[in-house]
Amino acid sequence: MERASVDHLAHERNKAQFDVEAMKIVWAGSKHAFDVSNRMARLVANDPVFSKDDRHLLGRKELFKEAMRKAAHGWRRINELRLSDEEASRFRSFIDEPSFIDAHWEMFVTTIKGQGNEEQKQKWLPLAYKLQIIGCYAQTELGHGSNVRGLETTATFDPRSDEFVINSPTLTSTKWWPGGLGKASTHAIVFARLKLGTQDHGVHGFIVQLRSLDDHVPLPGITIGDIGMKFGNGGYNAMDNGFLRFDDVRVPRNHMLMGLSQVTREGKVLESNVPRQLAYGAMVYVRKFIVSEASTALSRAVCIATRYSAIRRQFGSHDGGPETQVIDYKTQQSRLFPLLASAYAFRFVGEWLKLLYTDLTRRIQSNDFSTLPEAHACTAGLKSLTTSVTAGAIDECRKLCGGHGYLCSSGLPQLFAAYVPACTYEGENNVMLLQVAKFLVKIVSQLGSEKRCVGTTAYMERVEHLMHCSCEVREAEDWLKPYVAMEVFEARSMRMLVACAQKISKMPSQEEGFSELSSDLAEAATAHCQLIVVSKFIEKLREDIPGEGVKDQLEVLCNICILSLIHKHKGDFLSTRSITPKQASLGNDQLRHLYTQVRPNAIALVDAFNHTDHYLGSVLGRYDGNVYPKLYDEAWKDPLNDSVVPDGYTEYLRPMLKQQLHNAKL
Amino acid sequence: MERASVDHLAHERNKAQFDVEAMKIVWAGSKHAFDVSNRMARLVANDPVFSKDDRHLLGRKELFKEAMRKAAHGWRRINELRLSDEEASRFRSFIDEPSFIDAHWEMFVTTIKGQGNEEQKQKWLPLAYKLQIIGCYAQTELGHGSNVRGLETTATFDPRSDEFVINSPTLTSTKWWPGGLGKASTHAIVFARLKLGTQDHGVHGFIVQLRSLDDHVPLPGITIGDIGMKFGNGGYNAMDNGFLRFDDVRVPRNHMLMGLSQVTREGKVLESNVPRQLAYGAMVYVRKFIVSEASTALSRAVCIATRYSAIRRQFGSHDGGPETQVIDYKTQQSRLFPLLASAYAFRFVGEWLKLLYTDLTRRIQSNDFSTLPEAHACTAGLKSLTTSVTAGAIDECRKLCGGHGYLCSSGLPQLFAAYVPACTYEGENNVMLLQVAKFLVKIVSQLGSEKRCVGTTAYMERVEHLMHCSCEVREAEDWLKPYVAMEVFEARSMRMLVACAQKISKMPSQEEGFSELSSDLAEAATAHCQLIVVSKFIEKLREDIPGEGVKDQLEVLCNICILSLIHKHKGDFLSTRSITPKQASLGNDQLRHLYTQVRPNAIALVDAFNHTDHYLGSVLGRYDGNVYPKLYDEAWKDPLNDSVVPDGYTEYLRPMLKQQLHNAKL
Repeated sequence: MERASVDHLAHERNKAQFDVEAMKIVWAGSKHAFDVSNRMARLVANDPVFSKDDRHLLGRKELFKEAMRKAAHGWRRINELRLSDEEASRFRSFIDEPSFIDAHWEMFVTTIKGQGNEEQKQKWLPLAYKLQIIGCYAQTELGHGSNVRGLETTATFDPRSDEFVINSPTLTSTKWWPGGLGKASTHAIVFARLKLGTQDHGVHGFIVQLRSLDDHVPLPGITIGDIGMKFGNGGYNAMDNGFLRFDDVRVPRNHMLMGLSQVTREGKVLESNVPRQLAYGAMVYVRKFIVSEASTALSRAVCIATRYSAIRRQFGSHDGGPETQVIDYKTQQSRLFPLLASAYAFRFVGEWLKLLYTDLTRRIQSNDFSTLPEAHACTAGLKSLTTSVTAGAIDECRKLCGGHGYLCSSGLPQLFAAYVPACTYEGENNVMLLQVAKFLVKIVSQLGSEKRCVGTTAYMERVEHLMHCSCEVREAEDWLKPYVAMEVFEARSMRMLVACAQKISKMPSQEEGFSELSSDLAEAATAHCQLIVVSKFIEKLREDIPGEGVKDQLEVLCNICILSLIHKHKGDFLSTRSITPKQASLGNDQLRHLYTQVRPNAIALVDAFNHTDHYLGSVLGRYDGNVYPKLYDEAWKDPLNDSVVPDGYTEYLRPMLKQQLHNAKL
Repeated sequence: MERASVDHLAHERNKAQFDVEAMKIVWAGSKHAFDVSNRMARLVANDPVFSKDDRHLLGRKELFKEAMRKAAHGWRRINELRLSDEEASRFRSFIDEPSFIDAHWEMFVTTIKGQGNEEQKQKWLPLAYKLQIIGCYAQTELGHGSNVRGLETTATFDPRSDEFVINSPTLTSTKWWPGGLGKASTHAIVFARLKLGTQDHGVHGFIVQLRSLDDHVPLPGITIGDIGMKFGNGGYNAMDNGFLRFDDVRVPRNHMLMGLSQVTREGKVLESNVPRQLAYGAMVYVRKFIVSEASTALSRAVCIATRYSAIRRQFGSHDGGPETQVIDYKTQQSRLFPLLASAYAFRFVGEWLKLLYTDLTRRIQSNDFSTLPEAHACTAGLKSLTTSVTAGAIDECRKLCGGHGYLCSSGLPQLFAAYVPACTYEGENNVMLLQVAKFLVKIVSQLGSEKRCVGTTAYMERVEHLMHCSCEVREAEDWLKPYVAMEVFEARSMRMLVACAQKISKMPSQEEGFSELSSDLAEAATAHCQLIVVSKFIEKLREDIPGEGVKDQLEVLCNICILSLIHKHKGDFLSTRSITPKQASLGNDQLRHLYTQVRPNAIALVDAFNHTDHYLGSVLGRYDGNVYPKLYDEAWKDPLNDSVVPDGYTEYLRPMLKQQLHNAKL
């Protein structure tokens, strides 16, 4: 951490009632994870090539050039320092610049690993690992996003030459959005409809070389470019999201990814005996990663807003003394502290997903697919919930910083613009929620049958009880009993799902029911996912957690998480009669009391995220709280301040000020 | 409207069940208002100088230069065409580029009119009207936003020279944020603490010349600059929000705005006999304007999202036919149509505020200030409600456009980034809500006394009834009776306010109560403001509205507005027992039915906003629906596509691809 000579937040840090260093380990997940992150963050922060200071001032070309420069330098450093895979991955994440190199490692390499056969892995992975080729993942098209089955690009087998011929038959079939495609990639995994004669065999992946390895010029038949500017000043504009069209581009037969299906020399499609479900396993892998990333992004925004709320003062001056720190206002606390609690909650559910994935992998390897649908639904739902909440929370944190949050130097515009795509990629959030809802309604419809409810749906086995139980809260403190909260969340989720299932059963068809009730279904799925988040936080607190006062703080945060969700979704809890209006009101009283308990620990709780000033990239969120002098310094750096009199004065302002227009009104 | 050769939305337009041209008049407010807007919008749209096409590609300096160019050209055209004040104001708004010229007209001119004395108006207004000076409004400081009383800049009267000496005593006293200050303004109205000897007489406004009228160089003692980049690619970056510091800057005594208070030659402060309340009248004026602007911004976002939802198709293909238009999905409808209804609702409440302001002005002129507090609270609350909803809705519309909404060419990033400051300026939204809440709680505490509840608080006179009435809805259609909905909203608001008042009365002090319960208070104020919006929509429908089917459509929208608010705030309605869970569920059933009624009219309902393609600035929202070819064309314009091989390839990519690093892993 860049320690400052003066720490304007020292008095806040001194108030902390727990061991911050121990909390850092809890946040990181383990001592080892903390050490790696801590070292990598500082390696990046101390390297001037990775400076982010002028990012918001760069034009499109310069931004992309910077991204290439950072990627090349990062690659060199990773090799020079002989970083492990784990270290390299953390190192790259702290560079904090979306770029083609992410698409290469996270999409291209991962897909070959997951969908290539052994021969293909042996051929392509070494090239990819050494960056002798740069790859991307070309699935979505101009007219086709979430619905993979609607893709239009074709790959037609030509038995004479033993090749596939790839074409973009329509404008809407143009590949559109793939990161790294626009300018950097030499290769792509292209998803296209496999055609054999007149037969359409659905969508498969093909490795296609896009550009010459000699001079980077696109190969014949390939039209390629960048799709243009996206939201935000820096944001995702360092990424070359691209478009791609094919005009009779030929690739050898063995460029089709053959891990799951094969096309033989004779032009026959063979399904491998590798179970289809493996693809779901890969989705679980990616989405658990996104949940972890959500907690990180949320923690950054919360850290900035919390620190600045302790620095900023407004109103409440008595006798000319200093104004009140805005963090002392209940309105500020009621908006900020639930987000702080959510950051921790998402962290723990992310950690738990890692265990889930380990368990899932072990089962799949021994051909046990029994938990796969539940694990898939659970990660899809958590992906949707955590990214939606985080995107909204980043914007809320901007507002919590008042006007200054709107300045690029606050770091929040960049964080927001670069984060919101997470709501869309790897499963659009609303599409995800409906998938989860359908899965859950199916579970409900099977209740009472032989079928057991596993994992996060296990509570549904107690449907009889949950449909009729009533919440036992009589006074505000009763809300602090974890089993009380758990049952309330279970009852709400269960009752919403059963209500949906009943309404659907009255519809002419199930399909029509799902369509007509999709809003209700999405709300029920959200209720279920919130239950998962809450229950994993409560489970975490059953563990032995070392460090003075650490567990006490987490208990307070867990209760804030629970009660602020109940308040926010009071309509669900009341309409399902999971709680009474009186109990809701008691919950609110308790919530205010919990805010008071967090208040002295707030700065220490965001310090525990262990973010460097480089990674935060925010004047408002500086560790030392030295906000105002630095905001003033930052302002001077704007190009408009290069000259006292602005360029354009002579052409536009002066004539207006000097020429008394003959027909000026008055 | 730029008519296209092919209209991809023609089949949608043919479905409309009402007279779109008549609806355009309703939306505009009158035939006259429609004519003016329609002519001005097209004048701007057809002038190539006002093109917005490359806005997101411009660097900071170029953006500002473009803003100056457009301002100068706009000024020339306004004079050449001899536009009326009304026409000129509409003309400027369609240029759709935040710039110093807005600050000049809306802040500088307005403040001199409102706070100057006759002599000052005669001196300064002619200069300002002819743009011989450019002015701005310098109130907020680096460390001081909403709390005007906390400002630190000082203006000390020097009786010897008959001047004020203006100083910035601290870093946090630096003027910060004023639009037009950074680079363009020659003058500012500076708000500073008036000091006479050792006495502090609070904050007053002073006209200060900032720059030489000869060469635009800042005058001695003045340090001035731009505060730097803000959120978004274009956004507010065409505006030179500035900072300003004073080092013993002297202005003549008569540069203090003396409409309300005066300082005499002898150094005595005289309060004028003009009532203080006039300042509130000015706030009402500005805020009613902001409410109108909210409906406009919301209508733009909704127009883009609605048109693209009719073009975009996804899933649901049967037998290889086309996929389903996303506007046909209930999830899309349940997110989009309430926003469409809100746009109309905000329009009508904005129109009503104009009448309120006219009435208020007439009363003030005859020294009747009785309705002022209520009018002030009402506009403050509606300002907060409509801008918060609109900012969120623009982002929601971006999401409703899927991934493509994230492209600058969708127009939504620009709209969002340029709109969100409305939540902060002219009264920060949360501060506003608490002000409104305090006003309302005071009214509640006076119930039963002689004091009458006027205007939008009149319903509180029926407190006895509203505390005990129960909603009579028995089947879904009952929700369509306007008086049913009205009473439900009144009961909810009344009960929330009474609950707050009761809780506060149990606190040790009222101040502590307000502080502790601020979240509850903000929610109660929101409930009251939603009641105003709903009631003004219902009142509008009691008018005679010409045009076939127009009123029917508005009735559907009004009911969507009502029922979607009830759904969204179900927790409030249930916990106050204003409705039962069963009634909430019936409301939801009715809501889905209403969506079905809007569906065929959706495109025509957004056509009625009469937005030009220029004003929308969105490929996705094009009138002709020709989205995909134009998205493809737009992409090619990105500077990254100037060359096939990107600048930086040779330095960064090629060495990575070519050099087999000795220590590369694997």
